Amino acid sequence: MEGNFVYHNPTKLYFGDNAMSHLATELGNYGSTVMLSYGGGSIKRNGIYDAVVEALRQAGKTVVEDPGVMPNPTYEKVMEGARMVRDNAVDLILAVGGGSTIDYAKGVSASAYCDGDAWERFWVNQESPTGRIVPVGAVLTMVGTGSEMNGGSVITNRKAGFKRGKVFGPALYPRFAILNPRFTMTVPQYQMVAGFFDIMSHLMEQYFAGTADCTTDYINEGLMRSLIHASRIAAKNPHDYEARANIMWTATWALNTLLKCGKGGDWEVHQIGHAIGLVTDATHGMTLACVSLPYYRHVMRDGLHQFVRFAKNVWGVNPEGKADEQVAAESLACLEAWMKEIGVVMHSRELGVTEENIEQVADAVLILPVGYRTLTRDEVVDILRKSM
Amino acid sequence: MEGNFVYHNPTKLYFGDNAMSHLATELGNYGSTVMLSYGGGSIKRNGIYDAVVEALRQAGKTVVEDPGVMPNPTYEKVMEGARMVRDNAVDLILAVGGGSTIDYAKGVSASAYCDGDAWERFWVNQESPTGRIVPVGAVLTMVGTGSEMNGGSVITNRKAGFKRGKVFGPALYPRFAILNPRFTMTVPQYQMVAGFFDIMSHLMEQYFAGTADCTTDYINEGLMRSLIHASRIAAKNPHDYEARANIMWTATWALNTLLKCGKGGDWEVHQIGHAIGLVTDATHGMTLACVSLPYYRHVMRDGLHQFVRFAKNVWGVNPEGKADEQVAAESLACLEAWMKEIGVVMHSRELGVTEENIEQVADAVLILPVGYRTLTRDEVVDILRKSM
Repeated sequence: MEGNFVYHNPTKLYFGDNAMSHLATELGNYGSTVMLSYGGGSIKRNGIYDAVVEALRQAGKTVVEDPGVMPNPTYEKVMEGARMVRDNAVDLILAVGGGSTIDYAKGVSASAYCDGDAWERFWVNQESPTGRIVPVGAVLTMVGTGSEMNGGSVITNRKAGFKRGKVFGPALYPRFAILNPRFTMTVPQYQMVAGFFDIMSHLMEQYFAGTADCTTDYINEGLMRSLIHASRIAAKNPHDYEARANIMWTATWALNTLLKCGKGGDWEVHQIGHAIGLVTDATHGMTLACVSLPYYRHVMRDGLHQFVRFAKNVWGVNPEGKADEQVAAESLACLEAWMKEIGVVMHSRELGVTEENIEQVADAVLILPVGYRTLTRDEVVDILRKSM
Repeated sequence: MEGNFVYHNPTKLYFGDNAMSHLATELGNYGSTVMLSYGGGSIKRNGIYDAVVEALRQAGKTVVEDPGVMPNPTYEKVMEGARMVRDNAVDLILAVGGGSTIDYAKGVSASAYCDGDAWERFWVNQESPTGRIVPVGAVLTMVGTGSEMNGGSVITNRKAGFKRGKVFGPALYPRFAILNPRFTMTVPQYQMVAGFFDIMSHLMEQYFAGTADCTTDYINEGLMRSLIHASRIAAKNPHDYEARANIMWTATWALNTLLKCGKGGDWEVHQIGHAIGLVTDATHGMTLACVSLPYYRHVMRDGLHQFVRFAKNVWGVNPEGKADEQVAAESLACLEAWMKEIGVVMHSRELGVTEENIEQVADAVLILPVGYRTLTRDEVVDILRKSM
């Protein structure tokens, strides 16, 4: 364990195929007016919308409809939501959807009664909210971001021309989340698999840092092994409840702050992936997939001990009679084979990275001075080229 | 994953050798009168008492002294504490000590404003508190029970002649806990090692149940591996900060409800251990140690798949060319070797179990109809005999 830390995660999780049956009772803990935030019409087609509305009705709530939360929620939409919260004296924001919708709801919660410009205060200056907070609840329909049990809120400002993440404190975490694995089964295969890789990337970003012996790494290895096993089953049979349940639970714990306790993190793969997404508008998880192998091959020698550990404890590589470099390289061969098996996109050119825009992507990459190696811009370009 | 569950753990943990520096600020969240509950004089000798009192002074609190919490806290003491809480209008109970002191503080919290007989309501009838709750905070000085982040409260009623456990809900969990690994370093070797085995037993009791693929088991395996590694270091060098820190963190997560999410548990080793403790007054962790090998050898065939998994994923047993029974048996040989290495008591006769009192111990064992096998009384006696 390195350094000192605080762990505090008060989100209440209702998990299982019966989780929705708790919603009406849980709603009793909040005031009478609920803003129902969601994205497109998919929850109306698959019955989730009707089930939520029925629970709201049972709990006797007044509902303020807030549809149209987009996959990359904009600050303009956050401002609209904040106005609706004030105009209707909303007591609870109930986000029904994936990470985007929940990220959006937290943004609205912090912004509704914010003095001054919320964009500048929270997403640019990274201040903590000091004003009134409107509680957020969540019904999760897509896994990957972990937004259901953390303070993350990634918002795109179209006027400013960029996307920014803010990690709010526990007061902004969803007060409760309904996690029914069946609700995730209608997500298309491409999005589902991208979500699986996003989870794996959250785990690897936190794993590949530090040298101390740390319980957190052992927990992380367990989550990786569970995800690898379950994702192989789910990629073939998306309706396998057990696999989808284990993946949903792994996704929540992959990014709820537990895995950063007592150690640092890397997050450079996410930086490069975000830059690709900004230029190509490609699906987040797939941008991470294309970048991961070239990135990890590049930094492998700098964090060799951890790649050897990854090989033995996550992939079951037998190290006998092999040099550390070989053992480490075998871990990445295992990672590659798993990626192909579940069917992620392996080449960034398939997402729209070209010789023409590669410099533009490189310019958009934020280089973090953490992890096992701090990249130069040339190294970023090299990794991007190898990702094509 | 099996069934539906709720996970909710709002305890705020301050972890590290600087954790105490947060106490004065944290105390600002509570009213002016703090009851300071602790056991014997050890915290006065090792400086922890002075540090706590200094934080209370900085925070401007009025302190009500409540010393003398015994290793197996009695209901009579709980009633005394409850009276002190009422008489002094206490706003926070600050428990400084190990599991006993924190278990006691939760008992006082629930009992202080309880209508009717608290023993009957909570520990006998297992009711949930409906009256006013006095917040509990903790400064942990001994690891093992996980009481710092759960609702457990084991209390002994001398008049009734038995010990009972109550698991309160999250409202009774400590609101915060100060976890400084250095505070655990003054515990004598015998108690320290007993605590290590208690942690391992919490992990095994929750691991040896169920047949479904469950992320929880993967997390559990990670915690077991971290504990085994760190305890080997700490048993030789109790002042190894890294090892003690990893053990402290593992102990908290071993029993904070995460490891029962999505699966059942066993807990029969604890039942037999409690019966030995009741008759001999032996240290809890050592009673579990004596019983574990004979118990697991007895139920191994009933849960063979899980013992094979335990062998491969926790102990690194190579299964190639071996029958499942052999692989499973090797896991218990590894467990035995580890137990001897850290130095737990291996034979219950050393704790005072004799041919004369063995039937009395067996009579005190509560047989649970869960885990891989429900024991008969004859099987309990057989396991006890083999534990001697």
